[in-house]
Amino acid sequence: MDNFRFCSPTYFAFGKGTENDAGELVKKFGGTKVLIVYGGGSVVRSGLLDRVENSLAAAGLEYTSKGGVKPNPLSDFVYETLDDLKSGKISFDFLLAVGGGSTIDTAKAIAAGAVYDGDFWDFYEGKWIEKALPVGTVLTIAAAGSEGSGDSVITKVEGMLKRGASGDGIRPKFSILNPELTQTLPPYQTACGMTDIIAHLYERYLTNTKDVEVTDRLIEALIMTIVHEAPRVMADPNNYEARANIMWAGTVAHTNVAGSGRSQDWNSHNIEHELSALYGCAHGAGLAVVMPAVFTYCMEHDVTRFAQIAVRVWGCKMDFYHPEVTAKQGIEALRNFLISIGMPSKISDFGGKKEDIPVLVDKLVNGGGRNGSISGFVTLDAKACSEIYELMF
Amino acid sequence: MDNFRFCSPTYFAFGKGTENDAGELVKKFGGTKVLIVYGGGSVVRSGLLDRVENSLAAAGLEYTSKGGVKPNPLSDFVYETLDDLKSGKISFDFLLAVGGGSTIDTAKAIAAGAVYDGDFWDFYEGKWIEKALPVGTVLTIAAAGSEGSGDSVITKVEGMLKRGASGDGIRPKFSILNPELTQTLPPYQTACGMTDIIAHLYERYLTNTKDVEVTDRLIEALIMTIVHEAPRVMADPNNYEARANIMWAGTVAHTNVAGSGRSQDWNSHNIEHELSALYGCAHGAGLAVVMPAVFTYCMEHDVTRFAQIAVRVWGCKMDFYHPEVTAKQGIEALRNFLISIGMPSKISDFGGKKEDIPVLVDKLVNGGGRNGSISGFVTLDAKACSEIYELMF
Repeated sequence: MDNFRFCSPTYFAFGKGTENDAGELVKKFGGTKVLIVYGGGSVVRSGLLDRVENSLAAAGLEYTSKGGVKPNPLSDFVYETLDDLKSGKISFDFLLAVGGGSTIDTAKAIAAGAVYDGDFWDFYEGKWIEKALPVGTVLTIAAAGSEGSGDSVITKVEGMLKRGASGDGIRPKFSILNPELTQTLPPYQTACGMTDIIAHLYERYLTNTKDVEVTDRLIEALIMTIVHEAPRVMADPNNYEARANIMWAGTVAHTNVAGSGRSQDWNSHNIEHELSALYGCAHGAGLAVVMPAVFTYCMEHDVTRFAQIAVRVWGCKMDFYHPEVTAKQGIEALRNFLISIGMPSKISDFGGKKEDIPVLVDKLVNGGGRNGSISGFVTLDAKACSEIYELMF
Repeated sequence: MDNFRFCSPTYFAFGKGTENDAGELVKKFGGTKVLIVYGGGSVVRSGLLDRVENSLAAAGLEYTSKGGVKPNPLSDFVYETLDDLKSGKISFDFLLAVGGGSTIDTAKAIAAGAVYDGDFWDFYEGKWIEKALPVGTVLTIAAAGSEGSGDSVITKVEGMLKRGASGDGIRPKFSILNPELTQTLPPYQTACGMTDIIAHLYERYLTNTKDVEVTDRLIEALIMTIVHEAPRVMADPNNYEARANIMWAGTVAHTNVAGSGRSQDWNSHNIEHELSALYGCAHGAGLAVVMPAVFTYCMEHDVTRFAQIAVRVWGCKMDFYHPEVTAKQGIEALRNFLISIGMPSKISDFGGKKEDIPVLVDKLVNGGGRNGSISGFVTLDAKACSEIYELMF
């Protein structure tokens, strides 16, 4: 096991009705003037925004609400809010994100930029986020895990570069996790969320660190949970228990408790980011297409690892003469599972074209300060990435 | 899933040589004058105490070191230290425990008592610990999980009452987890530690909350880790990787991330506390005798639960006609595993006598403010507890 440091200090309030605790929790963590950030109109229509605002008002807090965060969130919302803050047009000392990963990541970017003199985008080109305004979240979809992580992903409008930033400074102070809020999600979004959670787990599972049984087992436990709950929630969107299991699994998956002390992959995420940036597909849908392709390409790097997950998670029988057969069966089982919950299996399902591959690859391996390759479980150069995109047709 | 709140803010520094980060970490969490608490001479003889003291000195911190914490730690060490603090004989604003669960629990008791006007024992009779001086730990045995928990267990000398206290106030600010420090442990202590970890997991597994797949799976993952690593570490005490997997499993087990949103048991711990209080046996050794007896007694309360763990963790084949057969096989597999690592299987192995049962039972169900029973997975009255102690012969 590698040496590591781990701290997940976020205070989680989980369960029915917990959005009504927003005011109490903002106060607990020192907020006085709150900027509520949200996306489209669904949090307005559902009455959630009202309930959160009422909770803040009842706690005697000032607040302003600002909607309009887009899926695959863009830098312009962040820049605009930071300009308004710095010009004195608005004023806040606490960010409260009401929504999913895009909304939370946007709030984190604003929180980091608010206490930084330079361009907030510096963080998305590799600068570690040490300090930020405090952030709280009210989660509306189990997916990104941003409610429990020190990560944020934003797309820069100029060049449509989708990049991630990290730092303990942007770990949420609190996150409100009410599975009821996810019961109204359309099936497609629910499935995209589960796919994203599974991807976060595979990205940690694919490690070059040996002999890490404890985190292997924890990751497998969380994937098995999603696989178990997925058909239940697809059959009945109102299944609270299934929603609750998925939600806690998604949060725990991304706190990194199961990823500590081991090298991680993240090639699938990087390869997918180019797809959602170019085609505007949902991140989870992109990942559903990317993962089997990447895993097929990288399988030979460590057949045993893929065989292990095939046996332990997907229930495949170990072929001791031909472990690569078992490994492949595991990848096929993942692909079939994703199809069973309505995810696309080909890049063309969301408009991908073969002639775009050179563009995708160039941005992937050269964009945003990269030098001709991406590295993770396996280092992938332009040729490798091109072959992987080919596998998605 | 039940509504819950969960926060595990402890900062973990894991890996080789991390005891040398003690000074940096005390400073990070605001300590200036440190009371180092430790147990017997092994941390002195091994040079660990020196390394920790040197690290504090290098960080410019003042410190005093106080040894003498006993296994199954007693209240008199706590009272004495608090008297010295309150009379001005010593002065400190940070507790650093260097040792195992007994040492850490003692430091927590001092930390809570130091900022409380009443008798610190109030906390061990049920008062929640909201505030305490900051505590850090340098862990030397994977066992109690106190390095990541908000719990502490102390035995009151008067009446030899062994009781637990809890509260977010005593969650350690940081814990240093260096598996190398556990390589010199005698096999018996290593095995006692693993048994304690497994007990913490079973206590959470035995729940009356339905449909909690995610935490079931996480608990199973951690138990399977211990079961996998145990023979490796018993065969070779210097196996760093096995030690590392056990250590992280033990810590995660007790942060409660895998116990959130579900009712828990803790009857085995309560029943064991009377054994170590009366016979002075190691807590883990006591648990090895207690667990199979309690589980056998309580199996009928939820045969399916015991069958599930038998199949998933112990690899038993499900007997669909007779699930109680599978459930029993799982308990037998646990018992055999514990014997295989050198744990006792009978109360008489550490001096238990049948004629003591009435005393044990009376203290258990009536001592320290209890009213004739203990409650957990199953509510157990005096008669039930008596039958359970009988099963241990």
